[in-house]
Order: sequence, then structure tokens, then C-alpha cells
Amino acid sequence: MTSHAKILVDYSTSVREGDMVLITVEDQGFDLACEVYKEVSKRGASPLIVAFPSEATRGFYMETPEEYITVFPKHYYELVKASDVSIRILSSSNTKALSSVDPKRISKRALATKAITDVILKKRWCVTLHPTQAYAQEAEMSLKEYQDFVYRSVLVDWEKESIKMKRLKEVMDRTDEVRIVGEKTDLRMSIKGMKAVVDDAKNNLPGGEVFTAPIPESVEGEVYFDLPAVKYGKEVTDVRLRFKGGEIVEATASKNQDLLRKIIETDEGSRRLGEFGIGTNKGIDRFTKHILFDEKMGNTFHLAIGRAYEECGGKNYSAIHWDFIKTMNYERGEMIFFDGERITELVPELFK
Amino acid sequence: MTSHAKILVDYSTSVREGDMVLITVEDQGFDLACEVYKEVSKRGASPLIVAFPSEATRGFYMETPEEYITVFPKHYYELVKASDVSIRILSSSNTKALSSVDPKRISKRALATKAITDVILKKRWCVTLHPTQAYAQEAEMSLKEYQDFVYRSVLVDWEKESIKMKRLKEVMDRTDEVRIVGEKTDLRMSIKGMKAVVDDAKNNLPGGEVFTAPIPESVEGEVYFDLPAVKYGKEVTDVRLRFKGGEIVEATASKNQDLLRKIIETDEGSRRLGEFGIGTNKGIDRFTKHILFDEKMGNTFHLAIGRAYEECGGKNYSAIHWDFIKTMNYERGEMIFFDGERITELVPELFK
Repeated sequence: MTSHAKILVDYSTSVREGDMVLITVEDQGFDLACEVYKEVSKRGASPLIVAFPSEATRGFYMETPEEYITVFPKHYYELVKASDVSIRILSSSNTKALSSVDPKRISKRALATKAITDVILKKRWCVTLHPTQAYAQEAEMSLKEYQDFVYRSVLVDWEKESIKMKRLKEVMDRTDEVRIVGEKTDLRMSIKGMKAVVDDAKNNLPGGEVFTAPIPESVEGEVYFDLPAVKYGKEVTDVRLRFKGGEIVEATASKNQDLLRKIIETDEGSRRLGEFGIGTNKGIDRFTKHILFDEKMGNTFHLAIGRAYEECGGKNYSAIHWDFIKTMNYERGEMIFFDGERITELVPELFK
Repeated sequence: MTSHAKILVDYSTSVREGDMVLITVEDQGFDLACEVYKEVSKRGASPLIVAFPSEATRGFYMETPEEYITVFPKHYYELVKASDVSIRILSSSNTKALSSVDPKRISKRALATKAITDVILKKRWCVTLHPTQAYAQEAEMSLKEYQDFVYRSVLVDWEKESIKMKRLKEVMDRTDEVRIVGEKTDLRMSIKGMKAVVDDAKNNLPGGEVFTAPIPESVEGEVYFDLPAVKYGKEVTDVRLRFKGGEIVEATASKNQDLLRKIIETDEGSRRLGEFGIGTNKGIDRFTKHILFDEKMGNTFHLAIGRAYEECGGKNYSAIHWDFIKTMNYERGEMIFFDGERITELVPELFK
């Protein structure tokens, strides 16, 4: 835990003397928050812990009259503005605490407090996770097993890892055509002119993802995702998508196929791809139903339908952004090609 | 707990639409904090929970280099300034967590952050306590017994109680001579011209105290305190004090008598009385080693040596303020007289 705290403070957010540091937790991240608090103080910076217990959040959404859902927390806004660093510790004691809440109230609140999120994104910020029974349960592990899993993915020499990941970014930045070949999969797309972004644990801990935006109309072929995609707490399994001229022309799933098709029909952008990302964190060796980990799983890639990231130069707009992940068994012939070259030969240190 | 939250929000701090509400907890007050959060939100005000876990505080004091102890938390200051209401929930999971900390570091920090405390005192504020195993242990009760004790003293009709307490204040405000007679006790003092203050659960929940300042040089006689006085975590028992011309001329105790005498010798003011208070909360029927409750115990009075409260018009100055409590068995002849009249006849509704 001390190492987890030190990575957050020294590597991810570079806390230095005089920094005002905001630490947010949900239900159970206090052991880690206390370590961060101590490390921050030792460096001459000033920590403060704000808690958002899931029952407080649930109570707010269930019982606040409609006209008060948008009340702006001016005091929190002032706190955030006066902070230099934000460290967010996911630490829920029940991942389903908001199950009965109307998602419309959540989006309405998110919109009303957007000014706060915007300010945080301009600071040094990092999101991490403290292992709880709730996450372990969701991942179908015991707490001890889950802790081992989390720390294996978090306690990494990120300076070294970052160098390797930047090599993958360089390759992607100069690539025109991507081709992905694998089980029930043969997909082509262009990423020409796009800018890949390296998630090397500065804003997410664990990090381990390099992502970019495909040129939407360039996507052709079919792809099969062996890992479940999750939306509104529901799992959609064995998703297969077929693209023609960049648009999804066929979409099937063995479970919740209706939900899949409904979301694809949200708007113009939701029928096209917004993101192509490659997972590089080898500590993440299995699917745990948490996107902070899943999309960074080693030997996987993911595609998202809907909104593209502006920092990649992406131009696909949509109200949604939904990730689908496929594992890649490079040793058994599944492969990603960048302009015809194998990813395992271009950046062997990440894929062996 | 809902009632506890409602008293805090509606009675103690009068939360209304648009209020920015700061809720602070220590280790375990989240059940109550979540209820307060919900009640605040329902009224169109905006809650935020800040946590000061005891291990974070301990870590800060034990490991922060000397030059960083005074770093000012500007972000917390901005938060406090932008708040209209402060609700503090004492909720320690270990009342001895700071035992190894040098008290000098604590005073140094308190001084460095005084601007924050000063701002809070200008808002609507209330301090309360959420029952934990740690407080129950300190009080020598089981948690269930302690919860019953706490709620008996908190869940009171404070509007009604306040009317009774104000009657006691009126009596005290027009009184010249106070005489206290009881076991090993016959003490006289003047409170002429002083202004009694009613603690009717606006700033402390539970409330239940009416206090004023004696005229220091008027105190004559002797007094015996059957309840232990606590200083620096040490208990001083069976304290007896003898006053002549307002000064303590004799001080004995059956345990820690040296500590008692040492503190009395702190300065000029510590040899004189600074406060005379009367406990009126009948739900508090026993000593629990927590000053939020002890000094409000029904059928007790307390005297403090050292600093007087300015709002009473008190003129005794000192670096210390230390309370000593005596129970009063009014039915067996112990009595407080105000200008010769029995307190049990002047305000019978509080002392029967």
C-alpha cells in the first residue's frame, strides 16, 4: 500500500512542496488515503480527504426533489479550484449501490456539475482503485486473490514501462492501415494522421493502454469480441460486428443482442468506431468487469463505438462511447498488422 | 439516526435552500453523515463530506518534518469560507490514536490553522458524536448500551428544553451570590453582572448546560469533585480545592495530585476560577470520560480553573481551561443557592 501511495504521489501526480492535494474516496479507500495523506505531508504539500460514500450518493439520487438535483456545490468548486492535484481512489463497498437510480438523474447531475470536472481535468489528476470485497466479488475472486491481482498491475516500474509504450505510440503514429486477424475476425481500418495517446499511469493507475481514433469511414470487415461488454449493468456476450464503408451493417450477440442493437442505433456516430486501443499491462491477466483494468489487459485490443477522443484527432461524434474487448493469442496466429508488419515484431518487448 | 440527522439539520444549524454544508467525520461517522447528506439535499442545500481519519492525523504528526507542520491548507480554507454551515461528527475508532504525538506539534498546528477555526465559528456550526466501539470502551459500556446512552441524551425535544434552560439563565443573570453546599463542599462566589450562556444544542448536540463566569476574587471556601478530571489522558481523582480571596490555597487528589498542582501553577489565571456551569441533560446519567457529555450531566455542576469565556463577560485569563465536575444529590440535601434561594425551587422543571 505504501508503494501504491508513493507511485500516486511521486510518479503519477508529481506532488511537490506547497501543492494543495485533494484526495477523494468512496466507501473504503481510507487505508490507502491515509498513506497518500502521509506521503503528501512529508513532501511539504497539504492533503485533504473528501468522501463520497455510495449510500450518500444513492440517498441523494433517490430522495432529492427534481428541482434540487442541479444545485451547484459552490464550496466543493472552491476547494477544487484551490487544489493543484486530484487523486481519486475508487473504493466502493457495493458496485450495485446505484442500481435503482434513474440514469437520467445521474446525467442531469453530471451536466450540472460539469464545471467541477472540467477544473479537475486541468490539474494534475489520477484515478486509482483500492481493492474491496465488492470489486473482488464482481471479479469472481476472493479479496486476497483480488488484492494480488490489483497490486500486480499497479506496482510496476512505470518509468521503464512508459518507454516501451511510447515505442508503440510512435509505430501507431506513422501507420496508415491497421489489419486485425483472429478468431472470427478480419478487420481493416485506417488511422492515418491520427495521434496515439499513451496511458502510462499518469492519469490512470494502473495504466497500460495506447489508443487512437480510426478514420470512421475506413473500417471494413468483421470482428468478434470474446470478452463480455457491459452496459447499464448488463452483460452483452459474444458480440460480432460487421462493418461496410465504416458503418455497422450486422451486429449479433449470444446474450442481450437487443440491447446491443438499440445502443448502436443511438445516433449517427454510434454506428461507427470512435476508438482503437491496445492493452499492454501484463499484470492484468484476466477479465474483472472493471474498465479501469479490463481495457488495459495485456494481449488484448479494444474498439469503442461512438465518441472519439479529441486528443487523438478523432472526428466521430456521439452521445455514447462503448468499449468492446478481444483477447489476442499472438502465439497461435492471431495478429495485429500495422501497414503489413506484425505488432509482435514492431514492439516485441510489449507483446512477448 | 434519522432523527439525530434531522435535529442537526433542522434545529441545530437551520439548513435551508441554497446552503453550502460542510460535514466532517473522523473514522466511523459515515452512517450518520449519509443521513445528514440526504436530509441536507432534500432541503435544496448542498452537502460535502470531509474525512479526518485518526491514522491520517497520526501519520501527519509523526512523520511530517518540523518545517512542514505549519503548511497552511489553502484549499480547505477556501472550502470553509464558501460554506454556510459546518456539522462536525466526532466518530473516532480509537480515542488514543494520538497518544505518542508530542502535544507541542498539535498546538503548533492548531495555531497555524487558526484562521480556519475562526471562519467556522462565524458560520452556523454544530459538533456532535456518532457512537463507536472506541467511545463505548472509554465509557466502560458495550456498543449497544452506549448507543442507547447517546441517543437518550441527543433525541430530546430541544425547543421545549431550551425554554426551561433559558429560565435558569434568567435566574443566573440576576444573581449576585452563589453558594454550593454538599459532600465536603461549602463554596461561595459572586456572578454579579455576568451573562449566563445557554448551550441548548445549537452548537453542541447533545446540549444541556448553562454556564457563566465567576468574579475570580469573590471565590471563598472548599469544594470536592467526586468525578475524575482528565488532563493529557490522565485521570485526577477526588480533587479537593480550597479558595481564599479567589485563589486556590490548597489542592489535593487521591490520584495524580502532582499533576493537579503543577497545572494550577501554570500562570496567574490558572489559580483562579474561569467558569461555573450547571449540567441539565437528564439523558446523561453517568460519567463517560467525554467532555461533550460529562459537563452536561443532569444534576451536576462544574467549575473550570483558568480562562473564562468572553461571552459571559469573564475576565480571568490563562493558557489553560480545565473542568472539574461534581454530582449533586438534591434530594439528600446537597444544594446550589442563588442569593439564598434553592435552585430546585427556582427552576424545578430542570432539577426534579
